[in-house]
Amino acid sequence: MHLFPKFSSPGSVGPFIKEMNITPIAITDPPLLNAAGLHAPYALRTIVELITDDGISGISEIPGNEQTNEALKATQHLIVGKDPFQLGELQQALEAHFGTESAHERGDTPWDQRKLVHVFSALEVACLDIIGKICNRPVVDLLGGRMRDAVPFAAYLFYKYEGAGGVLGSGKDPAAKGWAAARQEEAVDPKGIVAQAEAMCKAYGFKSIKLKGGAFEPRLETDTMLALYQEFGGEYPLRFDPNAIWKPETAFTYGKEMEGILEYLEDPVRGQENMAALRKKLKTPLATNMCTTSFEDIPNSIRLGAEDIILSDHHFWGGLRASMQLSKLCSTFGRALSMHSNSHLGISLAAMVHLGAALPEMPYALDTHYPWQSEEVIVGGSMGFQDGAVPVPSGPGLGVELDKEALQKLHKAYLSCGLTKRDDEAEMRKFYPEWTFQKVRW
Amino acid sequence: MHLFPKFSSPGSVGPFIKEMNITPIAITDPPLLNAAGLHAPYALRTIVELITDDGISGISEIPGNEQTNEALKATQHLIVGKDPFQLGELQQALEAHFGTESAHERGDTPWDQRKLVHVFSALEVACLDIIGKICNRPVVDLLGGRMRDAVPFAAYLFYKYEGAGGVLGSGKDPAAKGWAAARQEEAVDPKGIVAQAEAMCKAYGFKSIKLKGGAFEPRLETDTMLALYQEFGGEYPLRFDPNAIWKPETAFTYGKEMEGILEYLEDPVRGQENMAALRKKLKTPLATNMCTTSFEDIPNSIRLGAEDIILSDHHFWGGLRASMQLSKLCSTFGRALSMHSNSHLGISLAAMVHLGAALPEMPYALDTHYPWQSEEVIVGGSMGFQDGAVPVPSGPGLGVELDKEALQKLHKAYLSCGLTKRDDEAEMRKFYPEWTFQKVRW
Repeated sequence: MHLFPKFSSPGSVGPFIKEMNITPIAITDPPLLNAAGLHAPYALRTIVELITDDGISGISEIPGNEQTNEALKATQHLIVGKDPFQLGELQQALEAHFGTESAHERGDTPWDQRKLVHVFSALEVACLDIIGKICNRPVVDLLGGRMRDAVPFAAYLFYKYEGAGGVLGSGKDPAAKGWAAARQEEAVDPKGIVAQAEAMCKAYGFKSIKLKGGAFEPRLETDTMLALYQEFGGEYPLRFDPNAIWKPETAFTYGKEMEGILEYLEDPVRGQENMAALRKKLKTPLATNMCTTSFEDIPNSIRLGAEDIILSDHHFWGGLRASMQLSKLCSTFGRALSMHSNSHLGISLAAMVHLGAALPEMPYALDTHYPWQSEEVIVGGSMGFQDGAVPVPSGPGLGVELDKEALQKLHKAYLSCGLTKRDDEAEMRKFYPEWTFQKVRW
Repeated sequence: MHLFPKFSSPGSVGPFIKEMNITPIAITDPPLLNAAGLHAPYALRTIVELITDDGISGISEIPGNEQTNEALKATQHLIVGKDPFQLGELQQALEAHFGTESAHERGDTPWDQRKLVHVFSALEVACLDIIGKICNRPVVDLLGGRMRDAVPFAAYLFYKYEGAGGVLGSGKDPAAKGWAAARQEEAVDPKGIVAQAEAMCKAYGFKSIKLKGGAFEPRLETDTMLALYQEFGGEYPLRFDPNAIWKPETAFTYGKEMEGILEYLEDPVRGQENMAALRKKLKTPLATNMCTTSFEDIPNSIRLGAEDIILSDHHFWGGLRASMQLSKLCSTFGRALSMHSNSHLGISLAAMVHLGAALPEMPYALDTHYPWQSEEVIVGGSMGFQDGAVPVPSGPGLGVELDKEALQKLHKAYLSCGLTKRDDEAEMRKFYPEWTFQKVRW
């Protein structure tokens, strides 16, 4: 499809990328439960820093995985020497590098590692950070401009074992102090989750609540949602995510029971066909970050009517500009867009906030694991929440800077923790040796 | 759908728009024929200039129409005082201003005036021109960067009466000199069109050919395409556009006859349903700028399979960023994207070139009426073609500047020409008083 001559000279109108630093880090993570098992004591992230010949630094953060890190290293020659504005050229170079097949390869878990989108997302966000600094503008202004001053997030509740995964540092968001004790508590039943919700909402000011389910049998998890509704219903919208582990009949039964108490039901069943069939039977809107997770999935999603809300993630959809394109695609087809998260630090949060601030519509508060994290790699130690929302950083670029000392400390943790990829099943087996991941359990 | 607080303060990080100038102009136009009638001696355009408080000028050009000009004037208060980066906010303000109903209203002709998209396109392109100047970058770099150094166009042939519509000025593209005599010639049969093609391709170096049809009965127009194929087939791809004036059975008969000689067939029939039905029966790809012309048309287009190629037009699709979003949408659904044109000058051409240079894929040379125009509003008198392509301007912003003297001259022509909107039917009636526009004629 390239009938016409491609870009032949990089030009020399501005700075070029001289250096690319890839730093895997490990951050302490609490023992959170989900359908795939248990969070390990460390969550892995990879920090990418691009530095221009005139010393401008652009940063980004993506899910950590040894294979992604290797893929990033193998693409250094495609970005070093290049103009950070040439993102289209970079994307095509990466597509050629990875090939069509590997670009689309995926696993069964929601954090499956698709190299192309992860690598491009890492490079694109860092380039946008540089571009923003060159133009003296926050990243949001490179995405069409600011539609809101602060981006709201939801309280993201988890069933969990006892333990907080690290100790909250003194530099951490002051809001987190009130949450420090509560986040250590076990929460394996409705009462524990309601207590978790109360503490998290009080500390951060969240005004929407989401429970990650798929950890216990449907009766207990549905009872938990009913308990949350009794406590917060009418005040805060509630969402529930069984992580696609339910059979269609289970999802219908409990989905019916929760009709009227949920803002949306996230991935009750696995696969676009099952989602589409359930969607016809339930009044509750269905959301997904598991059945429609790439542009390749969109045609079938539209044909079937698989979901009402796509929970995008710029790390998984190929960056911030692709997410804006996804937003237009969603509005064209009458779908809503919101955001998914994994365990992450402030660089990812800043990117999400700039994107969230640029979205024309924001009908739902975004997901974030941020309150569960204890460490940071950004200068200042954390991004603060105000009334459950993060104010859009006003500085140029992402508006957050890399704390080199913290980065090295967390890199050491990566080297010593022994983990090279996320494996919630292996972690769960430390408690239950017979436990196995099942795509559909109940 | 606005659950969350909107942007509350415009900020003051950069320059703001202090002045908006709207100048309707009339440019001499040859007597070109199409399904709607005959081009009048003048084509109308409107030139918009936004000037910031620190004196940066951003310009744009849109199809001229008194109603559009009135609509533009009525939106001055929405743009003056604003930061040119806040395009998302501006779009929502315009949507609120025009209301949902008028945003979607349309006529039957391809140049139907949809106020919202025209007004937003005018303001967005001028803002991008300013942003490019602020950042010292060409507009292409604000759209993802340059994928090619020059953007190829097709020779756009028309059945026409004798006359060139004005005299080529000395400042005009040198390539046009070789074309000056030929463009005066009548072309109402295969021989005339072949001669037109030879002269235009020789002068401009075009390597693709398109014939605007819908002016004569199908036999003559099909014979014209067969004559073009005899002359250029195998060398240059050929396209034909009957302007949606054919009945389905006519389109099938002549479409079959032209199978194998066309790169694509543009709008052979009217409406998405008819296009989809024909598409199942012909091997030739179908293109449109008439049945799928807005994001609102997309869901039905995808459901029906109405076309293979969308001929976008940033004036009609809401600007350059929306066109990039359309490009992603097209690639997601396996459609190709190319570009439509109306009679236009160099500001529109520059915008098309920046957009064309940023598109990830460019399988087809773009449409342009540019060789038919004799005048310019940009400094230097014209944008030059090299081998049928326009090199991407390298200066900041659009890379073209307004010639204030030429603008005033063309504005005087607007005031004296007596036209306030495009009306090819009225012009045709000067020759054939009984002639009426028919949506479907043969």
